[in-house]
Amino acid sequence: MKPPLDASTVSRRLDAVRRSLAGASIERLLITHLPNIQYLTGFAGTAGALVLSSDGCTLIVDARYVTAARDLIAGFGDAALSLQPVARSYDETIRDVIAANGAAPVGFEAAYLTVARFNALSALLSASPSAESIRKAERNGPLVPTERVVERVRMVKDDGEISIFREAASRLSAIARRLPELAVPGRTEREVADAIEEAMRRSGFSRPAFDTIVASGPNSALPHASPTERVIQAGDPTVLDFGGVYGGYCVDLTRTVQLGPSSPEMARMLAAVAEAQQAALEAVAPGRRPSEVDAAARSVLERHGLADAFGHGTGHGLGLEIHEDPRVGRLVPGQPDDPLVPGVVITIEPGAYVPGIGGVRIEDDVLVTAGGCEVLTDVPTFL
Amino acid sequence: MKPPLDASTVSRRLDAVRRSLAGASIERLLITHLPNIQYLTGFAGTAGALVLSSDGCTLIVDARYVTAARDLIAGFGDAALSLQPVARSYDETIRDVIAANGAAPVGFEAAYLTVARFNALSALLSASPSAESIRKAERNGPLVPTERVVERVRMVKDDGEISIFREAASRLSAIARRLPELAVPGRTEREVADAIEEAMRRSGFSRPAFDTIVASGPNSALPHASPTERVIQAGDPTVLDFGGVYGGYCVDLTRTVQLGPSSPEMARMLAAVAEAQQAALEAVAPGRRPSEVDAAARSVLERHGLADAFGHGTGHGLGLEIHEDPRVGRLVPGQPDDPLVPGVVITIEPGAYVPGIGGVRIEDDVLVTAGGCEVLTDVPTFL
Repeated sequence: MKPPLDASTVSRRLDAVRRSLAGASIERLLITHLPNIQYLTGFAGTAGALVLSSDGCTLIVDARYVTAARDLIAGFGDAALSLQPVARSYDETIRDVIAANGAAPVGFEAAYLTVARFNALSALLSASPSAESIRKAERNGPLVPTERVVERVRMVKDDGEISIFREAASRLSAIARRLPELAVPGRTEREVADAIEEAMRRSGFSRPAFDTIVASGPNSALPHASPTERVIQAGDPTVLDFGGVYGGYCVDLTRTVQLGPSSPEMARMLAAVAEAQQAALEAVAPGRRPSEVDAAARSVLERHGLADAFGHGTGHGLGLEIHEDPRVGRLVPGQPDDPLVPGVVITIEPGAYVPGIGGVRIEDDVLVTAGGCEVLTDVPTFL
Repeated sequence: MKPPLDASTVSRRLDAVRRSLAGASIERLLITHLPNIQYLTGFAGTAGALVLSSDGCTLIVDARYVTAARDLIAGFGDAALSLQPVARSYDETIRDVIAANGAAPVGFEAAYLTVARFNALSALLSASPSAESIRKAERNGPLVPTERVVERVRMVKDDGEISIFREAASRLSAIARRLPELAVPGRTEREVADAIEEAMRRSGFSRPAFDTIVASGPNSALPHASPTERVIQAGDPTVLDFGGVYGGYCVDLTRTVQLGPSSPEMARMLAAVAEAQQAALEAVAPGRRPSEVDAAARSVLERHGLADAFGHGTGHGLGLEIHEDPRVGRLVPGQPDDPLVPGVVITIEPGAYVPGIGGVRIEDDVLVTAGGCEVLTDVPTFL
């Protein structure tokens, strides 16, 4: 299942990016980050580029994708998307499209374009392919760095995307409720991870959104463990973190299953992380900053003496990518911390990890609504 | 299964990169491309950085990975790898490690470091966080662009890697030989793709190396089609392109199955692509350039009037990544085309795609040997 893009959605998204560009006084944007291209056009190939201007938008793809892209664009009718097949190389074709399209500077995605490709494109565009080009371009050349132009638009999901998220979260939740029968003592972590991924496939997910984490016993103290051949033992705390791509969109869920009686330390950690998650969920509302949501979880864990045991952020945005804006973490100078708005979808996943004792993480997916938030996933905190 | 890295392999790889650096008159290298970090240290997290100097190597990881990285490094004993946990942010910790380690310029991976991160790191390192930093750095600053320093070392596989490739290719071939029973008329493309991925999992692959392609009938004319809900019909040409990650390494195989009697056009295309593949395989030997291997396949297809139907390259290197050096394609100015050497592993996968008729691709994996090449995959050309 692919995201159902129609002509009006494409036009609306392109116009939203054009407004965002205009706000930065940039007339044109070269888009090379593939999820941004997919968001704006529906094109989901492994290579491509997009040149957006105030009155047009050109999708550049290589021979492998020309037929598919032509069909895709035809389906949008008049939606101002044109196709330019790659002639010799992507960068030369990008140069040709940009040159044919006026003399205004072109924004590029500084968070994705590599230094090597920036140098190559700058050289092509300034028609003086020398080592000087990067400086020229920075001073007054054709390429202007931008950040988060498309990402800011993508961060606020539209109704079609929200419908997909609700369905995806519902399907992932149904699998999560079965974790106690999947993660049974006697199975290896790898076997449990395989069973979870198999359940996601059967449920209609096109692929896992990331490598499934099944971390049992001592491994649970590693926040990002890979599944091993370790056989899960009765009494193990086991962190199960998994997600799938449904209709193009990523959902993500974690539960920590205690297989048998808990040690007193583990029971305290489970309760503390659950309390921290609840506090963070209650902090999600329009106008609140992501760093405030993070602080809500962090202060609970600090109160329980687990400040040092929580080394990651409280959550992250979800969408076509498994990690997108906003970052829900401590305030970092220079990093965005814009107030939440309705339509933003984030994970809330505090954790605590103590080597020698074990680890806990609890994660749900949340939609910011006008009145606060809607928890999209629906699974008991303790299974 | 993870690649079995021991202390001597780590030392050998680090020293090979140091020699490669010395050849470029650079004393230190900041490595941010994760597969390069995995190759050199075995660390396979989703974030990390490595600073290599002539007498040391520091792995930088965040709190999620500190315990795992410490255990990993302890396993190497004296192998001159040290660990630096991230304090506030990766870039600040990178700056601290670089600053504590002398004043020599530091190479960076221009093909992977983004412009935004280059600017941020340059600003931190030059201690003048201004918009001027990128120019200063280019002129005489602390960061020096490099390309393919680690990649050139990775391109030549060592005996341990070759053993993994042989095993992985053998397992993938066993699945490919079963394609006629998996890709039967009446199943959808999606169902067939799921069955192939399930077979890979059962065979010990940790995950698909890329999204499996099952392109039947008219879809076969799209070189990079995604599986659809189309029901495969008797008589359809069907391109099946799939691969898995085994022991950390990627293998990749394509067969085109003709489910029922071929049209005369399809029969000619199948024969032409098979002939082109054979010609390319015969061109693989030490001293030959990748562009010559590509030309061998291309000239056969040209002779059959299929020059325009073959829009992609003949192959690519395999390793920890599904696409790595060398690129086996037409000579492109400025792109490397170094002669093949023993230990290089590449795919050979010519194809032909004609909208309205259909498409064909045939792909095997090949190890360059002292005497020519060893075809690692072992599957009849026509199934």
